[in-house]
Amino acid sequence: MNNKLLVIGTMAYDAIETPFGKTGRILGGCATYIGLAASQFKTQCGLVSVIGDDFEKAHLDLLIGKGLDLSGVHSIPGEKTFFWSGKYNNDLNSRTTLETQLNVLTKFEPVVPEHFKNASILLLGNLDPNLQIKVLNQMEKKPNLVVLDTMNFWIESYREKLNEVIAKVDLISINDEEARQITETHSLVKAAKKLMAMGPNYVIIKKGENGALLFDKDKIFCAPALPLEEVFDPTGAGDSFIGGFVGHLSQCGRISFEEMKAATIVGSAMASFTVQNFGTKSLEKLTIPSIKERIVAFKSLTEFEI
Amino acid sequence: MNNKLLVIGTMAYDAIETPFGKTGRILGGCATYIGLAASQFKTQCGLVSVIGDDFEKAHLDLLIGKGLDLSGVHSIPGEKTFFWSGKYNNDLNSRTTLETQLNVLTKFEPVVPEHFKNASILLLGNLDPNLQIKVLNQMEKKPNLVVLDTMNFWIESYREKLNEVIAKVDLISINDEEARQITETHSLVKAAKKLMAMGPNYVIIKKGENGALLFDKDKIFCAPALPLEEVFDPTGAGDSFIGGFVGHLSQCGRISFEEMKAATIVGSAMASFTVQNFGTKSLEKLTIPSIKERIVAFKSLTEFEI
Repeated sequence: MNNKLLVIGTMAYDAIETPFGKTGRILGGCATYIGLAASQFKTQCGLVSVIGDDFEKAHLDLLIGKGLDLSGVHSIPGEKTFFWSGKYNNDLNSRTTLETQLNVLTKFEPVVPEHFKNASILLLGNLDPNLQIKVLNQMEKKPNLVVLDTMNFWIESYREKLNEVIAKVDLISINDEEARQITETHSLVKAAKKLMAMGPNYVIIKKGENGALLFDKDKIFCAPALPLEEVFDPTGAGDSFIGGFVGHLSQCGRISFEEMKAATIVGSAMASFTVQNFGTKSLEKLTIPSIKERIVAFKSLTEFEI
Repeated sequence: MNNKLLVIGTMAYDAIETPFGKTGRILGGCATYIGLAASQFKTQCGLVSVIGDDFEKAHLDLLIGKGLDLSGVHSIPGEKTFFWSGKYNNDLNSRTTLETQLNVLTKFEPVVPEHFKNASILLLGNLDPNLQIKVLNQMEKKPNLVVLDTMNFWIESYREKLNEVIAKVDLISINDEEARQITETHSLVKAAKKLMAMGPNYVIIKKGENGALLFDKDKIFCAPALPLEEVFDPTGAGDSFIGGFVGHLSQCGRISFEEMKAATIVGSAMASFTVQNFGTKSLEKLTIPSIKERIVAFKSLTEFEI
């Protein structure tokens, strides 16, 4: 497999309110978080996304500076970038959307750049399943790994199309409540089995501060979340997780359950950085030594001798 | 340290309703679950408890057959054993108490048998903190490890006395909601620090299907719960956990954070057995090979290479 990683998702501006403070209009969007997380690894990562002409040059420069390939990012003149604002409740476990301006998203026609049509890993970030399918269909051959990330909105309103995407991917990554919602079952072990019966060979169930579970047909791996004194802003945690996950797999060049276990820890490490500051602030400043140090923390958090 | 483990707690009859069925009057009580779990280890385990004359000989024989020392179990003639009945909701995460008959509990005057006054480990099971203190005061010297298990009822109604107990123990074991309730803080890392500031050197926060966290002043260990297809009956899971925890420590004869990590896994294994059947059924039939096999399952659930 080559080390090309293609990501489709949103690039956006967010305004976030948590019990710890309030931001102005800051950089956001799942493709942004995924790209920033994946850029920490030796991978050729391309984003397919859409922006308006209000998207700041400084933000494009930031992403390009991280080595991300933005040739699949389409700018629509006279239109504004997707905007979302939300407010987290006191325990940070739930949030209320204050405002959603779809803007350019309504005109998004994803086009995969020629040099990414042979990418070994394709990550379909949280987005309209119709757009996810369009990207999948543009690949010249089936990638070694197709990963799907989705959320409750698409489960509720685009279920049929979403099922079609689920049937075509190798791995689905969703949170616990969404896994229960799709499969109409409470046990996460049963939910994972039902999801695998719908198509994917692998399932990741994200449990927020309780970590993540990775399943294949026979095995389960359980990654903790790093216990933190303060979770500052959970926005982008799931995206950073899956970005770190595919970044690690792309770098190591092997798709196996054993490598996915490591990738799940790497993803959890990336998520733990993201939640320690507003928006993409932590990811922007991340260094390889700090990632290595955090992975050591995950080791000592789970290792035991009997 | 010697291998004596002293446990104070209830011996009871329960009637339990879960989405999977309904029991008649079955054996229950925290000392029962703790004793059955601890009896799997090379330890001399004594129970301090109280029963009525309705307590069945078959149940006493069961506990004695497991090697438990019942010389601290006081039977009150003409009185009935503590009885609790409850019903779990569909996701098994909450329960409603249908009936509580305190019966003999109102007359419980715990007496520590002479040969257990030098026990190396004392486990104060979930019970009135006034009774927990009385047992602690009867020990001839401070045990190597005093463990406290408690729950929301005592936090709400006996707070002052509970604080007195907390100040005197080495380790407190409570669930996540109770940790938040006692410390009035949401972050479990902060909650653990606040609990340690109240006295104990170690804190265990139980998170049900999300595993358990073990803290000392500098370190954190994260034990997963075994992901199960069916959780049949959660009654006694926390007691089995702490029973396995102290059973392991008593057998290995060392009190350290490293041994407590192993003990946390052993406790999680015992809890995973308990929830797979009604009441004490799983614990009664447990064998050493099945415990070893399950600990291997916990290893493979958490081990990774990066």
